[in-house]
Amino acid sequence: MSVYTVVEPDELAHWARKFSFGDQVRLTPIAAGITNTNYFLDTRQGRYVLTLFETLQLDELPFYMELMSHLARHGVACPAPVADDSDRLVSMLAGKPACLVTLVNGADIVDPSPEQSFSLGAMLAKMHRAGETFRLTMPNPRGPNWWSRTAAGLYPELSGDDAALLHDEVRFQDSKRFLLLPNGVIHGDLFKDNVLMDGERIGGFIDFYYACNDCLLYDVAIALNDWAVQPDGQIDDALARALLAGYQSVRPLTAVEVDSLPVMLRAGALRFWVSRLLDWHHPPEGALTYTKDPEIFKKILLGHRARKDFWL
Amino acid sequence: MSVYTVVEPDELAHWARKFSFGDQVRLTPIAAGITNTNYFLDTRQGRYVLTLFETLQLDELPFYMELMSHLARHGVACPAPVADDSDRLVSMLAGKPACLVTLVNGADIVDPSPEQSFSLGAMLAKMHRAGETFRLTMPNPRGPNWWSRTAAGLYPELSGDDAALLHDEVRFQDSKRFLLLPNGVIHGDLFKDNVLMDGERIGGFIDFYYACNDCLLYDVAIALNDWAVQPDGQIDDALARALLAGYQSVRPLTAVEVDSLPVMLRAGALRFWVSRLLDWHHPPEGALTYTKDPEIFKKILLGHRARKDFWL
Repeated sequence: MSVYTVVEPDELAHWARKFSFGDQVRLTPIAAGITNTNYFLDTRQGRYVLTLFETLQLDELPFYMELMSHLARHGVACPAPVADDSDRLVSMLAGKPACLVTLVNGADIVDPSPEQSFSLGAMLAKMHRAGETFRLTMPNPRGPNWWSRTAAGLYPELSGDDAALLHDEVRFQDSKRFLLLPNGVIHGDLFKDNVLMDGERIGGFIDFYYACNDCLLYDVAIALNDWAVQPDGQIDDALARALLAGYQSVRPLTAVEVDSLPVMLRAGALRFWVSRLLDWHHPPEGALTYTKDPEIFKKILLGHRARKDFWL
Repeated sequence: MSVYTVVEPDELAHWARKFSFGDQVRLTPIAAGITNTNYFLDTRQGRYVLTLFETLQLDELPFYMELMSHLARHGVACPAPVADDSDRLVSMLAGKPACLVTLVNGADIVDPSPEQSFSLGAMLAKMHRAGETFRLTMPNPRGPNWWSRTAAGLYPELSGDDAALLHDEVRFQDSKRFLLLPNGVIHGDLFKDNVLMDGERIGGFIDFYYACNDCLLYDVAIALNDWAVQPDGQIDDALARALLAGYQSVRPLTAVEVDSLPVMLRAGALRFWVSRLLDWHHPPEGALTYTKDPEIFKKILLGHRARKDFWL
């Protein structure tokens, strides 16, 4: 269930008027999305996606909306927010901040091919390059400070082995400083379910609400850990190579980035192991989330700790 | 023939790199367009349209490019210019100013249906409303000053009847002042061949190089004179009514606009009668243009001068 907010026909008609669609607009609920309410908005001019934000506040949204708008302007495949008569990308509807974005072709996939993995890498690199001219910034809410603090609260809940592994990895990551790694705007959550594939091509990246400023390589690591992983937690070499080759076809990694990939892949695994452990042991109240298995990220982390060949 | 400038593979590859397409880019000439060179640019990320400007200079282009970008951001159906790594929408390629825009679905049509005419009116109104927040301006190069001056040079070339009609219409239009008509950004040349239709919907407005600031109603008149005209120069009532109804479904005309429509339809006919007479009697040098029949606009003008019912 993803419709938390119902929009009355009258308030919809009033709101939609700001987008010059004419008189015929119709909403259809979308049964996807965990934290927001999404509808298709059908108009004489075509279909759009309407999002009502259930937790983000009006003043938190400009970074994400302007980012998507900037990326779309640079040809990065993602929904383009539509501006209203007042040139705003977000306004209130049914008591919630709301935005309208263009429909993106494609569907999310479970088993990417190497070609799709290549395309993913290339589009991610394109996003990173387009981000160089984006002027708003957002600190990473899920960086080293967050995982160190969160891990400290988790140790008592874990088995001895898991607590030792988590503690060791947090300490290892704390010992690393990445001052020489290129920084920029990252998606931060580029899992397969946040990418619509249109055949071999990227239809669009979606769900930018973890986007922030951080090492670009961290984004590559997060994507690789999901796009190239097998059900048992092992990384598929062909998919990993294809993703990195696609990325480098658009933005070659620097020497420092190549050297840092092993550590960053572990950091990406750590970040999601910690957040899933947190949700597992301290599930948020209410129906606004559901719990995913943390184990897979422990396996990915162990794999990277043991790995000798990082495909580059 | 529309390819005046040939792009060498090396310079294309160098230029395309600024758009993060990766290594595979290919050009295919487009056999349409009169004044510019157009290519399809095929990339791993999809197909785009590359335009090399043969007459417009680099410093003249920001108005048009930023306008299309602004309109696309507001959901107006038109090609969206793609920004390069430096956030520019125009840069030099093969010695010419060049831009890259998204591909628009659809094809131009010869015989619009009333539904298509309605859609055209609605999208034109949407463009006019979106233009309210566009901050660049451009005076109309084909307004009353231009046609009065140009007509003066044409009288000696015309038959006595035509010269008398032209003189009378110029004097009539000169006697009118439209200070109370809503002004804004107009397309200025929204003929059927500048609109790609995707079924009943507008795929996209194209060819914005006559866009400027003027009375919005002038834009409606120019579009109506082409979209509702029959081969004999008579206006089809059903098409005219549909276009105006579509327009008003998004932006109702003001009372002053309703009163001014007859005069403005004549102004729209006059503007194109004059420009076609000019091309007919003084064809520009070189292969960069071809001559269209002026007679049809004389017929449209005569029809509007005799008309009693203006569909509103």
